[in-house]
Amino acid sequence: MSEKPVWELIGSGFVQHYYNLFDSDRTKLLDLYADFSCLTWEGEGFPGREAIMKKLISLPFKSIKHSITAQDHQPTPDSCVVSMVMGQLKADDDHVMGFHQVFLLKQVGNNWICVNDMFRLALHNFGA
Amino acid sequence: MSEKPVWELIGSGFVQHYYNLFDSDRTKLLDLYADFSCLTWEGEGFPGREAIMKKLISLPFKSIKHSITAQDHQPTPDSCVVSMVMGQLKADDDHVMGFHQVFLLKQVGNNWICVNDMFRLALHNFGA
Repeated sequence: MSEKPVWELIGSGFVQHYYNLFDSDRTKLLDLYADFSCLTWEGEGFPGREAIMKKLISLPFKSIKHSITAQDHQPTPDSCVVSMVMGQLKADDDHVMGFHQVFLLKQVGNNWICVNDMFRLALHNFGA
Repeated sequence: MSEKPVWELIGSGFVQHYYNLFDSDRTKLLDLYADFSCLTWEGEGFPGREAIMKKLISLPFKSIKHSITAQDHQPTPDSCVVSMVMGQLKADDDHVMGFHQVFLLKQVGNNWICVNDMFRLALHNFGA
């Protein structure tokens, strides 16, 4: 039996599932969002599942592989789970890039849905 | 008049206030947390305002300066605001380091309180 708290299992399970789908067939990410979900991608907002999926599917690479460097999870006062991910990604033949992403997960029926999603490349976070 | 949405003003206002206090006198951060707040600092959890403040005050530097590279904010389904910050910090005479931090903000009475806080240095997020 795991001794990890349930919110950590929910968060880490979601994160693993999310990037597995993203790297194999990101059209399947549809089921992880709701109509009231919101994505901010590199500072640009995409409200609602339809806009989110349109953005994710339009990203200009054929293959991508995410590797997670660190992830943190917390329960929120409203029975959600907030997750912060640091990682690296490699898209097609580009250089490896750092990224970070935040998910707010909420239980809807029997499923944990991503209601808030924020993504940024870590490219610009260096130097003095 | 600003045309920015209110949740963005709440998030960006909190972020500015938080780092101003952190850099000038971090004992004053007390008022930004509640007893049910939770901090994860470099992967280690600190539940509750008292534990959070004990950790923040014990950090081993005399002076610190945060610079924000990018910040994103979203409203959540439970009327909170989630904020993701990328930035750089310089502690005493150390090299500049990248960091990222996530805040979940909730209105308690007339104040916006940080109920969830996650912080990580970006040191380990590079290379192939």
